[in-house]
Amino acid sequence: MKYPCGIVKQNKNVIYANRGMGLEEDINITNKYYRDYNIAIVYKKPTPIIVNKVDYKSRNDAVITEAHYRIPSTTDYNGVYKGKYIDFEAKETKNSKSFSLNNIHKHQIEHLKQITKQGGIGFIIVRFTTINETYLLTYDKLETFLNNNERKTIPLSYFKEHGYLIKDKFNPRVDYISIINLILEGLV
Amino acid sequence: MKYPCGIVKQNKNVIYANRGMGLEEDINITNKYYRDYNIAIVYKKPTPIIVNKVDYKSRNDAVITEAHYRIPSTTDYNGVYKGKYIDFEAKETKNSKSFSLNNIHKHQIEHLKQITKQGGIGFIIVRFTTINETYLLTYDKLETFLNNNERKTIPLSYFKEHGYLIKDKFNPRVDYISIINLILEGLV
Repeated sequence: MKYPCGIVKQNKNVIYANRGMGLEEDINITNKYYRDYNIAIVYKKPTPIIVNKVDYKSRNDAVITEAHYRIPSTTDYNGVYKGKYIDFEAKETKNSKSFSLNNIHKHQIEHLKQITKQGGIGFIIVRFTTINETYLLTYDKLETFLNNNERKTIPLSYFKEHGYLIKDKFNPRVDYISIINLILEGLV
Repeated sequence: MKYPCGIVKQNKNVIYANRGMGLEEDINITNKYYRDYNIAIVYKKPTPIIVNKVDYKSRNDAVITEAHYRIPSTTDYNGVYKGKYIDFEAKETKNSKSFSLNNIHKHQIEHLKQITKQGGIGFIIVRFTTINETYLLTYDKLETFLNNNERKTIPLSYFKEHGYLIKDKFNPRVDYISIINLILEGLV
């Protein structure tokens, strides 16, 4: 549904867009939009789970009765855009001034390093929920920060300077591909 | 460890290579080899599971007490090789003459179609366990078959003619990247 400019804010869906839905949900909806319009094929990976016990009630109905969450060895999202491999992790923080790297597992950062080395496009998406700003930071810039700072907390100013603000939109909600596109074309 | 030609067969690891380990295990070991040598970064995705009940025994020890397996909407493996996105499904069959497409979910084939459209490299790896032959068939050739055949069973002869035999090796066991490399360079 398309509304003329003035009416947009009266649409319930718009009012709640990016409010409380959470970054993960917003990215999932964005990825669906990309898939529906053949822009990119990106999925969130399933949460890694170690299954301990399974009850085979019937041939088609196996019930897992004991399992544990496993620390992921890779990032949450990957896929393809114009033949290129893209890979990223997305996190929210309530802190309005900085993002603590404790939010991302060490081997996830190592994974982003490996895929960047292999010519893939690796990045993180961080949303500062308090100020409602979402940034894309490429792995290269993340590495630069890590190599030059003892602290494991990236100030918002670093995102402003070396990252890219992903502007709030109705659809797609978190349009990170538009930024990847600019990076690939060398325009930013 | 390298052995002169004549001695290879006396090595226990070699004797058991590709015997009973199963294609999935062989591919996992192959992917680890690729990662260790910076050849490609490819992982098997976690099995998708729907979690119904979780028992939070302690802050760090959540035990899943009821969950179900979910039909995967994508393929099992994806990753990056020389910046390119690769994506595939791997299956074994005991049938020595043909491979039934009932082994692969419809939406997995649809997924391979979408990623190929987006410039990714999509394919299937099929092992005929009885004759111990493993083939790589690109999505394009799979689509050609589907467009020209009513039957959902691909004869071995089609793999021999339009696919690529992945020769048994000690390390990496299922060297599918060597074939992707030849395809990318237009040599096959």
